[in-house]
Amino acid sequence: MDARELRFAVEELQHAYVHCIDSDRLEEWPDFFTDPCLYQVTTRENVEQGLPVAVIYCDSQGMLRDRIVALRQANIYGPHTYRHMVSAIRVTRSDSNVVTAESNYTVYRTRLDPIDYGSSELYSVGMYRDTIVIEKGVARFREKMVLVDTARILSLLVTPL
Amino acid sequence: MDARELRFAVEELQHAYVHCIDSDRLEEWPDFFTDPCLYQVTTRENVEQGLPVAVIYCDSQGMLRDRIVALRQANIYGPHTYRHMVSAIRVTRSDSNVVTAESNYTVYRTRLDPIDYGSSELYSVGMYRDTIVIEKGVARFREKMVLVDTARILSLLVTPL
Amino acid sequence: MDARELRFAVEELQHAYVHCIDSDRLEEWPDFFTDPCLYQVTTRENVEQGLPVAVIYCDSQGMLRDRIVALRQANIYGPHTYRHMVSAIRVTRSDSNVVTAESNYTVYRTRLDPIDYGSSELYSVGMYRDTIVIEKGVARFREKMVLVDTARILSLLVTPL
Repeated sequence: MDARELRFAVEELQHAYVHCIDSDRLEEWPDFFTDPCLYQVTTRENVEQGLPVAVIYCDSQGMLRDRIVALRQANIYGPHTYRHMVSAIRVTRSDSNVVTAESNYTVYRTRLDPIDYGSSELYSVGMYRDTIVIEKGVARFREKMVLVDTARILSLLVTPL
Repeated sequence: MDARELRFAVEELQHAYVHCIDSDRLEEWPDFFTDPCLYQVTTRENVEQGLPVAVIYCDSQGMLRDRIVALRQANIYGPHTYRHMVSAIRVTRSDSNVVTAESNYTVYRTRLDPIDYGSSELYSVGMYRDTIVIEKGVARFREKMVLVDTARILSLLVTPL
Repeated sequence: MDARELRFAVEELQHAYVHCIDSDRLEEWPDFFTDPCLYQVTTRENVEQGLPVAVIYCDSQGMLRDRIVALRQANIYGPHTYRHMVSAIRVTRSDSNVVTAESNYTVYRTRLDPIDYGSSELYSVGMYRDTIVIEKGVARFREKMVLVDTARILSLLVTPL
């Protein structure tokens, strides 16, 4: 694939990924990853200092599914929806069917509780660093690093970024 | 058209559309639609519950023009400008010259009144669900659904989303 | 180059540009411009009224480098990072190897001081109006106009937009 085809494929994956989350089709979210995989949410500061502990760490589709089951059945949190914006998607390397890419994101959270119903706020700003595998025309995340600038996370992080 | 050409065409339309509004060339805004057409601003909640009433409902270019005439001559509101961001533009179906697409948007409002002059704030977050017709190389919205997450609309909605 | 190749080239440049700033590789920032060049940050209002004075005015790579030296060694400001989102990138004209383009941007600032560490806020909203020269496959800004809607600049403008 040439540079344009590669970026197109990465964009298609990213766009499908964020619409999946924003439409609350979270049960499909693990399917965007290979198995095993690596999904981490960590702070920009930790990465720059080489500190390995992440806010969220999942290394299999099973662990990803577990997060959604927890979200649906166990976690207690104020009802809300997300809206992701992704920008500046950039392929940084490609080697046969493996592509690394970076992009900037912002996530807005809209409250659904009776007090603040329908009010939106900036929830998280940061970047994605992704390793994507393309097999039989299907692109999946082998690794998705979410590096948040917004280290001060509002209330809690339950819906994936 | 292949998948890349289709998305390119949809992006070109969306980008021209938002620059038209953000540059205050609102008299050209109805030209982005077919006639008849359907332009609705509604809440995500209403759509999910199948409730038909929209915040804004226009089904012809004439009704769109009427909104702009009202905005220029009749409506009373604090002076402001908009800035749209559109992301994750995704073709969801295409059938000969008709394309459906979805995308996420955020709109920032900058105040121009003497008190808050030049201060920007998040105004609306949501998604577009569009049906686009491509005729003789020109793409137009046959239907544009603006599904706002931000059901709590700040002050009022006068400039189109 | 056809319309798609042109926009692809412009997007690649814009995306590399914002990742350069957001990753704090500011010493590389002047390399995105030709020499001489024109980099201006000004307000939408000034441009609409034909007022020539800009918030920032640099017309050579040397002046751009000077800003970064000042930022690193002389300016006093609260530590922070930026995150740029760019959207609606649109080629408005192209003539052999010179392209003009416009796009919308938002910049979020995340504070790194001990009091507000890790909190993100909307910092600036506006548009880019660029003139880009493509020579030997390398695209550079001959002119970059940053037209801010957010005329009320938070605290100060030290990191480039």
